[in-house]
Amino acid sequence: MQIRRFYCPDLTPDSKNIQLPDSESVHALRVLRMHPGDPLMLLNGNGLTAQAVISDDSTGKKAVCAILSCENTPHPKPELHLFVAPPHTKAFDLVLKTASELGVASITPIISQFSIAKPDGRPDAWQATLISAMKQSINPWLPRLYEPVSFAKALESCEMPGIFGATPHHGIRRNQASSSGRALSVWVGPEGGFSPDEENALLAKEFLPISIGPYVLRVETAVPSLLTAAYLLNHDEDI
Amino acid sequence: MQIRRFYCPDLTPDSKNIQLPDSESVHALRVLRMHPGDPLMLLNGNGLTAQAVISDDSTGKKAVCAILSCENTPHPKPELHLFVAPPHTKAFDLVLKTASELGVASITPIISQFSIAKPDGRPDAWQATLISAMKQSINPWLPRLYEPVSFAKALESCEMPGIFGATPHHGIRRNQASSSGRALSVWVGPEGGFSPDEENALLAKEFLPISIGPYVLRVETAVPSLLTAAYLLNHDEDI
Repeated sequence: MQIRRFYCPDLTPDSKNIQLPDSESVHALRVLRMHPGDPLMLLNGNGLTAQAVISDDSTGKKAVCAILSCENTPHPKPELHLFVAPPHTKAFDLVLKTASELGVASITPIISQFSIAKPDGRPDAWQATLISAMKQSINPWLPRLYEPVSFAKALESCEMPGIFGATPHHGIRRNQASSSGRALSVWVGPEGGFSPDEENALLAKEFLPISIGPYVLRVETAVPSLLTAAYLLNHDEDI
Repeated sequence: MQIRRFYCPDLTPDSKNIQLPDSESVHALRVLRMHPGDPLMLLNGNGLTAQAVISDDSTGKKAVCAILSCENTPHPKPELHLFVAPPHTKAFDLVLKTASELGVASITPIISQFSIAKPDGRPDAWQATLISAMKQSINPWLPRLYEPVSFAKALESCEMPGIFGATPHHGIRRNQASSSGRALSVWVGPEGGFSPDEENALLAKEFLPISIGPYVLRVETAVPSLLTAAYLLNHDEDI
């Protein structure tokens, strides 16, 4: 059986005994009925993971863990920062899961000209989705979820190189894509794509247009496609 | 407003007037309340699309279309053939949608060693999902959905080159990946990945292992990632 994983943001390299957050405690003790001595993995969302066991100090609602060993994992390179026009709520959950599995450093919902949905302000639910995906994919780095912002403002303040999902008429030129292992921004518009004005603004920043296949992609498909392209175009030496 | 799209498998380049299938007729006339003269697009799922209008010959339940013009679109290259261990039913729907948007030629559900779900025999529902995705993504080629088959049997009868989703310890070597524009098979295992025996069998076929990012991907994420990799690795001249 695979070892159970829990989010524990207070975990540090020096932790010996640590109490899980309330919701994780309830999940461990009430839902999973774990007992003292049962093994588990803790993730602090900041690169640190620990092997631990449920300790005798646990009570009915508070799971206390005894740390056996700790490990620090560096963030994957390049650091990918996703800027995405959120689709409707349920689909945005899929986007968050996918982005977390693919190891993005941050997610910024953007409001673009053709956006069909405004982010509807469920930051707690979104955070819960990210934490769940982090545990499922054994990603020790919890992606940072920023406040929604307009496309124009997001682009203006972006100092990273970037790639963006483009309508199929654009070509892809590899030599512009490399971020040399540094941070890279990845821009995904709504299902209709970015508007011509927005595409021109992205091109003016020398961001690389990428289109995968000849057809219209939903945002839920465009996100993993573009993140995959970001990995492949930036790991020439490894692939 | 975007023009409405309908699946019409009987459409040929010589069609002048054509009746939509029953379910599409009901959708056009009853749900969307379309009237004679209203424009629509027909897709035959075999590369042919037509601009048309609802004709005066339509009755309450039968939508007849007058064809204005026809266009044949070649299948995207390389022809991608997806072999995938289906996750639970709802997630397999997502896989079908994604694969259709990304223009695969065929989908074969495979039963692999670590599969968590057996395909549960809803071929009608799956076909409906593919048709819906084809219309949404304006993909004139309906992917062919094959019967579920064991991993071993699928691999044995596969004569194409291939790439497969691998656990992160594998490297990627680009020069093995090119299918030179021909057909390419894309293999995606269950969330736990292919078993060591299965990976060895794939490697014995000289299929290319690809891992995207360092973390565990759900099948719904691995499918668009691997299909994207297939496009990028096979379009060196364009990217």
